[in-house]
Amino acid sequence: MNFNFHMPTRVIMDEDCILKNSFVLKDIGHKALIVTGAKSAKKNGSLQDVTEALRKAGIDFVIYDKVMSNPTVNCVYEGAKYAKENLVDFVIGIGGGSPMDAAKAIALLAVQDKNKEELFSCSFENKVLPLVMVPTTAGTGSEVTPYSILTNDMAQTKTSISTPLIFPKLALLDPNYMKNLSLTVTVNTAMDALSHSIEGMLSVRSTTFSDMIATESIKRITQSLDKIQIGKGITSGSNITMDIREKLLYGSMLAGIVITHTGTSAVHSMGYSLTYFKNIDHGRANALLLPSFLRFVSKNEPLLVKRILLAMEMETTDEFETFFLHLLGEREKLTMDEIERFAGIAIQAKNIVNSRVVPDKEDIIQVYTRSLHL
Amino acid sequence: MNFNFHMPTRVIMDEDCILKNSFVLKDIGHKALIVTGAKSAKKNGSLQDVTEALRKAGIDFVIYDKVMSNPTVNCVYEGAKYAKENLVDFVIGIGGGSPMDAAKAIALLAVQDKNKEELFSCSFENKVLPLVMVPTTAGTGSEVTPYSILTNDMAQTKTSISTPLIFPKLALLDPNYMKNLSLTVTVNTAMDALSHSIEGMLSVRSTTFSDMIATESIKRITQSLDKIQIGKGITSGSNITMDIREKLLYGSMLAGIVITHTGTSAVHSMGYSLTYFKNIDHGRANALLLPSFLRFVSKNEPLLVKRILLAMEMETTDEFETFFLHLLGEREKLTMDEIERFAGIAIQAKNIVNSRVVPDKEDIIQVYTRSLHL
Repeated sequence: MNFNFHMPTRVIMDEDCILKNSFVLKDIGHKALIVTGAKSAKKNGSLQDVTEALRKAGIDFVIYDKVMSNPTVNCVYEGAKYAKENLVDFVIGIGGGSPMDAAKAIALLAVQDKNKEELFSCSFENKVLPLVMVPTTAGTGSEVTPYSILTNDMAQTKTSISTPLIFPKLALLDPNYMKNLSLTVTVNTAMDALSHSIEGMLSVRSTTFSDMIATESIKRITQSLDKIQIGKGITSGSNITMDIREKLLYGSMLAGIVITHTGTSAVHSMGYSLTYFKNIDHGRANALLLPSFLRFVSKNEPLLVKRILLAMEMETTDEFETFFLHLLGEREKLTMDEIERFAGIAIQAKNIVNSRVVPDKEDIIQVYTRSLHL
Repeated sequence: MNFNFHMPTRVIMDEDCILKNSFVLKDIGHKALIVTGAKSAKKNGSLQDVTEALRKAGIDFVIYDKVMSNPTVNCVYEGAKYAKENLVDFVIGIGGGSPMDAAKAIALLAVQDKNKEELFSCSFENKVLPLVMVPTTAGTGSEVTPYSILTNDMAQTKTSISTPLIFPKLALLDPNYMKNLSLTVTVNTAMDALSHSIEGMLSVRSTTFSDMIATESIKRITQSLDKIQIGKGITSGSNITMDIREKLLYGSMLAGIVITHTGTSAVHSMGYSLTYFKNIDHGRANALLLPSFLRFVSKNEPLLVKRILLAMEMETTDEFETFFLHLLGEREKLTMDEIERFAGIAIQAKNIVNSRVVPDKEDIIQVYTRSLHL
């Protein structure tokens, strides 16, 4: 039994946990840069809670609220410049994956001089501003990972920075901020988290420990998604109970711990082109590909796939596909030209070889075709 | 769903993991103090592996090998003096719970001036020497906890220092060092770990997350102990397979993560007197008390007890008791005078109130009586 476990982030999950734990922020720094998007953190109450907690703790702060979906490299350089100008000594990311991932890159670039070419090489000096994360969606798990995923226009895809330096010091999880998320965002982000845990189990780096966490995560998310399937009385995000919101947030955090140890695999590699070129939401992109990819894996690793299905209380890959098709509704379509091009990009991604059954280019084309050439 | 998770130690488990990871030690410090006991680390190969890894990494070291079982406060002051004299900048604990716990206290006292009265107050400045742990028994879980348990002659019991400062930076787990542990030590330490996970589930501080880990730990340890029950062909420690050794080491590390979050409970409070006054091994002391304590809890919390029994694949507290009685063999005896005295000490311990069903002094007397007044 070989394994490696390292996840140093302190995680606190509780309703109103930010205000209850304002004193904890005092130990982290004296002046914060809050990194967030233009709108959602203002609407869902998270920004107000954070600023109130900072005031209560006597901590000064400035706000950088220009993070877009799928943040670009330029955006994080701009944020880092703002951090330096304002002499902040820690960074708080509030939002979905985009602001949290941007916050991580900003915390690095605020104290390290790296040009755009060097940024993805992941060779950093041992310094970073401490990070606090407040997720406002339940999907990315970025609050407990050492990854920052940025849109890399040079490589025409999303590329990750991976270094233990950007493990957040503290993650504050309050399901209240998800109360008004739309049904679509809720489902897309939940499918992203589910994909993390499933891909974690399909990874060559999976361990007994990561599988235990992945199994628990898959159970929680599947049970929750099952309750919000179309036709079960839930017609909008506001119908979703706090109990489901909590389970999704817990499940996505667990999935973050999983990919911290296993990385993601071919599904993410293939999904990035759908987001980059077709503007398909990240979680949805994974979910579109997952059923066909699982079918591909099951040919070589049927027992491994059985374990995943068991956690979902399913028997077959058909059932698995039906589950996702219900959640996805009408699917996007790709031309064969697009598929050929995306497969060419995906096959070069570093997480392709992370899969226990490594697909070749032809396999990738088949998975894309079965999923999106309808 | 409220919870709090924090376990920043990097854990690497693998055969020969110390030599394979010597480069990791370079990032920790330049001169190490190795803290260990007089004999076992020399016999089981762990000390040699550590010194070889340090030499390979070009790290200087000195050795303090005077840690006795149930280390005293004097011992850790002596170790801290030695650390200061030798200007070490990190500490490596090798051994069972005793050397690891001593190493933690030494790492604190090497950089903080605290007298013996202040030591257990747990109010420290924010500084400590980094810690590396190499467990050579599978019981204490100290490699992943923020606790150091010392014999406190002033209070006539064992008392714990608890501070996140003493979370090890790195734990290196190699089951090879357990190969020649006697059957008695193997069983005693495994029962200690099992007690940690069970007490964790009985704690008011248990969470969904800690319960997941506790359940996995209880399963692994019970299955392993079941295989080394007397009469199943195993007559000495050397008959125990590496597979069982690995599961026990994994299970005890998980149990350490559990008590990091839940603390121990009344069983440990009661067990300390058995060790302090009757010289009964710590793990055995817990195991002697556990069946009667579980019976006591089951009156008020039958469903909670059912969950523990389920993880052990048992149906009743009778089965639970039979399992432990087989492992314990002939039990020690206490007089009613001793029981009265020990109950008086236990009722004052801080982890008594940690139990979901808090026993009063009369309950404690009954548990002692049922367990040891035979």
